[in-house]
Amino acid sequence: MVNYQEILQDIYTEIASSENEGKIASYIPELAKIDANKFGICLTNLVGREYHVGDSDERFSIQSISKVFAASLAFSILGDKIWERVGVEPSGTKFNSLIQLELENGIPRNPFINAGAIVVADMLITHLKHPKNDYLEFVQKLAGENSINFDFSVVDSEKDYGYRNAALINFMKSYGNIENDVDEVLDFYFHSCSIEMSCRELSRAFLIYANHGILASTGEKVLDKSQIKRMNALMQTCGFYDEAGEFSFKVGLPGKSGVGGGIAAVFPKEYSVVVWSPKLNKKGNSVYGLKTLELLTTKSGLSIF
Amino acid sequence: MVNYQEILQDIYTEIASSENEGKIASYIPELAKIDANKFGICLTNLVGREYHVGDSDERFSIQSISKVFAASLAFSILGDKIWERVGVEPSGTKFNSLIQLELENGIPRNPFINAGAIVVADMLITHLKHPKNDYLEFVQKLAGENSINFDFSVVDSEKDYGYRNAALINFMKSYGNIENDVDEVLDFYFHSCSIEMSCRELSRAFLIYANHGILASTGEKVLDKSQIKRMNALMQTCGFYDEAGEFSFKVGLPGKSGVGGGIAAVFPKEYSVVVWSPKLNKKGNSVYGLKTLELLTTKSGLSIF
Amino acid sequence: MVNYQEILQDIYTEIASSENEGKIASYIPELAKIDANKFGICLTNLVGREYHVGDSDERFSIQSISKVFAASLAFSILGDKIWERVGVEPSGTKFNSLIQLELENGIPRNPFINAGAIVVADMLITHLKHPKNDYLEFVQKLAGENSINFDFSVVDSEKDYGYRNAALINFMKSYGNIENDVDEVLDFYFHSCSIEMSCRELSRAFLIYANHGILASTGEKVLDKSQIKRMNALMQTCGFYDEAGEFSFKVGLPGKSGVGGGIAAVFPKEYSVVVWSPKLNKKGNSVYGLKTLELLTTKSGLSIF
Amino acid sequence: MVNYQEILQDIYTEIASSENEGKIASYIPELAKIDANKFGICLTNLVGREYHVGDSDERFSIQSISKVFAASLAFSILGDKIWERVGVEPSGTKFNSLIQLELENGIPRNPFINAGAIVVADMLITHLKHPKNDYLEFVQKLAGENSINFDFSVVDSEKDYGYRNAALINFMKSYGNIENDVDEVLDFYFHSCSIEMSCRELSRAFLIYANHGILASTGEKVLDKSQIKRMNALMQTCGFYDEAGEFSFKVGLPGKSGVGGGIAAVFPKEYSVVVWSPKLNKKGNSVYGLKTLELLTTKSGLSIF
Repeated sequence: MVNYQEILQDIYTEIASSENEGKIASYIPELAKIDANKFGICLTNLVGREYHVGDSDERFSIQSISKVFAASLAFSILGDKIWERVGVEPSGTKFNSLIQLELENGIPRNPFINAGAIVVADMLITHLKHPKNDYLEFVQKLAGENSINFDFSVVDSEKDYGYRNAALINFMKSYGNIENDVDEVLDFYFHSCSIEMSCRELSRAFLIYANHGILASTGEKVLDKSQIKRMNALMQTCGFYDEAGEFSFKVGLPGKSGVGGGIAAVFPKEYSVVVWSPKLNKKGNSVYGLKTLELLTTKSGLSIF
Repeated sequence: MVNYQEILQDIYTEIASSENEGKIASYIPELAKIDANKFGICLTNLVGREYHVGDSDERFSIQSISKVFAASLAFSILGDKIWERVGVEPSGTKFNSLIQLELENGIPRNPFINAGAIVVADMLITHLKHPKNDYLEFVQKLAGENSINFDFSVVDSEKDYGYRNAALINFMKSYGNIENDVDEVLDFYFHSCSIEMSCRELSRAFLIYANHGILASTGEKVLDKSQIKRMNALMQTCGFYDEAGEFSFKVGLPGKSGVGGGIAAVFPKEYSVVVWSPKLNKKGNSVYGLKTLELLTTKSGLSIF
Repeated sequence: MVNYQEILQDIYTEIASSENEGKIASYIPELAKIDANKFGICLTNLVGREYHVGDSDERFSIQSISKVFAASLAFSILGDKIWERVGVEPSGTKFNSLIQLELENGIPRNPFINAGAIVVADMLITHLKHPKNDYLEFVQKLAGENSINFDFSVVDSEKDYGYRNAALINFMKSYGNIENDVDEVLDFYFHSCSIEMSCRELSRAFLIYANHGILASTGEKVLDKSQIKRMNALMQTCGFYDEAGEFSFKVGLPGKSGVGGGIAAVFPKEYSVVVWSPKLNKKGNSVYGLKTLELLTTKSGLSIF
Repeated sequence: MVNYQEILQDIYTEIASSENEGKIASYIPELAKIDANKFGICLTNLVGREYHVGDSDERFSIQSISKVFAASLAFSILGDKIWERVGVEPSGTKFNSLIQLELENGIPRNPFINAGAIVVADMLITHLKHPKNDYLEFVQKLAGENSINFDFSVVDSEKDYGYRNAALINFMKSYGNIENDVDEVLDFYFHSCSIEMSCRELSRAFLIYANHGILASTGEKVLDKSQIKRMNALMQTCGFYDEAGEFSFKVGLPGKSGVGGGIAAVFPKEYSVVVWSPKLNKKGNSVYGLKTLELLTTKSGLSIF
């Protein structure tokens, strides 16, 4: 039997002492304020047992990891209809590329690039009564923790510097792929990305993707088995911007990264795992996060492949 | 325990009676001659037990499925050096796109698009003594069948109509990413794609990807565990041209398709499976092949996700 | 000596009776209201003599023709500095393409595509005291007619449907190539495009491009000789979206078209000419307008080439 | 009256003493052997009077300037049919870009980019009895000089390094836009680019573009007036790769450059002019050549705009 606590401890020690040439995300001032040396890991297995090291209880901005929750909620509400307005293919280009959108008439490649997540946000606004609140409660439920909240200073910072996202949404609106008011959709989108969670909370929330869609704490079925299979497939092929192949290649697990420095991944039927370290490589993924997960699958001898 | 024979039989019956709106590959006349109604399936499990239905013993042109064998052979010879000349990311564009090559200075996205497979062919010519013969013997060894051979009429047909591939290789040569003579590389490449195998032979050959790189028949380690993990990851993210996400999404297995109508897939640590039906959808993948594998993971209740 | 009145009359008669397969611009409802059969021509020579036929006194929305005036005003204020933020090369792509902007880091190809005109608008806002008013007065001065004004219903219509332009400006702002508030710049831009002028007024206003930059009525030098040469060169290579080559090829005069159905052109040192007919071809240029100018250079036997 | 001899002498003196940061074309070894300091100018007026300075009698490789002669010959043979297989629009991208070809199904933007010139070469092979010889004789006739010839060492060098052109032609052949054997077409194309001419010979050959298509020496009409107008329009919008706008903007004359360092230009109804200086800027155009022509139109006070 694999001793995860020992493995995580070894990995933490090995990596924490290594050089980190990454850089903190600086595209919005609020994210640039984070302590670059934070480093935490938490792995949660199917029976809810947690293994963690480092700054695993400190909350950070989950950023794009939120796109997995948003797509899951939209999928649970609309079913396969969501794929009429957003694709399931890797983008092959940078996460904010407008080129693909132009070549493909305003339909984003997948729900994990910004354009796709904005379309998902638009869907949720149409179908939720109190969009921001309902979404926050959905995330709280997955994590089993009601104190999880938005970081409003990050929301404000996103709004002040969100010209690229404003370009994306207006462009898609010109193709008829946005139903609601652009400012309302961006407000929701910026809120969803600004949620703060710790490694432990995120790891618990991601357990449904390892557990056939069942919320371990209550037994509630959030997504059905087939939908979870699809969300995992999407994370596998599209979870890491234009580094998805590299991640799949080195780590071999479905996962999703965020520019706040977090990476969440799952080993279906085994565990969920979250790493946080704010320094990013050039593709926008956490340097220590990638190393941690590569070592985890290597040292445990387990991967889906 | 899963009864694969029963499942395959059910799938075969269900699909064979359904409408097939696909079209046979016609870009080379030789491929267009195939009987459109052929349909065979073979699944081989880890202990070498085979389950098969339909035209599973009839050989067909494996076409792009050969790219997996070629990349594996190059990987086993050169190790990680092969990734200096070919990437590991999904392409996001059509399988013969020159746009990406131009934007990325002649380095193909991955070894499963034509450009990438041509670079791999170039590597093999540099490192093999008798390239075509040595490669054929490698494939024969994986399948345990010495009568496997090239279809020379397909080779000739490819040469007569291979202007797109000639464009690709000359373009990469202009960037310095082809070492050998372009005609020699294309000759090898066209031969490698023209190999004929049956579902049963291909299924046996693909077993190493489910079996940590070990050739079941002899115990020989063809690729090491880590390399197999990587080849599977590559099949998962890049095995189906610009339908890789869709396949991963619906089927959830690493695999590779060819325009001859074949699809090979693996369930790591469980089985390999090959379907053959020549009618292709617009993305160039076998219509029945995709359906068969989607039903297989659904009916067996097993997928890597 | 060329008898322009006779030539224009002949052209008008010949064209007015021909089939017109073009379509009125419909991207904003306000423009779609125009009478599709309007057709007017006016040619003004260097000494101010006017030749006109048809609906040459009826005002229409000058739309993109306004980009020439705006670029000229910015050029006269900032000199060669304006070329640091906007290029002088043909775009080779549709007039609202975002692809080129992304590949070239937010610097538009030239001031006559939408993105370029928006950057020019941004410059004018920075340097004019009362931007909209000052700009309107500049155009009134060129035409020698103070009753020229904005069409506010077109402005409102542009704002309601201007998602593509909102995408462009936000995208350029994300690259740092917009200094002012995006809504303020778009407001100015939409106003500038909504100016209404007749063929006769426009023709008079374009006379400076045939006359070394001198305003015939007052002798004022609006642009110097070298600047006029450059504005003409720009109209020659970039005045007709991705049909600039075709226009140059068939007509051989520098010119600029607008989706309101107007085309203004100049024969340096000879005349300016304006045609108006609202039905557009697929590239967005007036069908009758193109024919008129082709016949004009053919029948007069004069062209710059 | 303009004193061209004095103007050319002044320009030559001013430029020859200035710094030249350009670089000799090195993509084929044979071109890299040229003496970088060569500098010659020749202007020929409508009555055949020649004004020249510097190395105006030394022959150099005309390279892409040959594309104007080839397109003219094809135009004279096929008439407007040639525009079914090659466009008349600026490319907006580098002279050897495959991206545009892919987006536009194998139809090159214009006859002055490599792809377009290769299609023109294919047309000439189809319609000429002895293609290489007939083409050479056509150029000899325009220049009135029978000793003009191919430089066979340049032809060989082009063949050894012509992978990009091989990519282009194979790509177009895959779209059905090449009729003849690819090697035969490339052989013709490389020969046509390797013709050696001096500034004086080229200047005389270009006089037809200033002279309504009439060969001054014999009175023969090579192209009609309307065709010449079109060739000039094409040179104006497409003659300088992705620097066509810049050239039109600064010089204001139709013209064509070659990587051998030559630039030929015409002032319709006035003169033809050729400059040669081998050092090129980053866009592949002669640094001194551009300066010379900019000064020529400035100092003479004449330009088409």
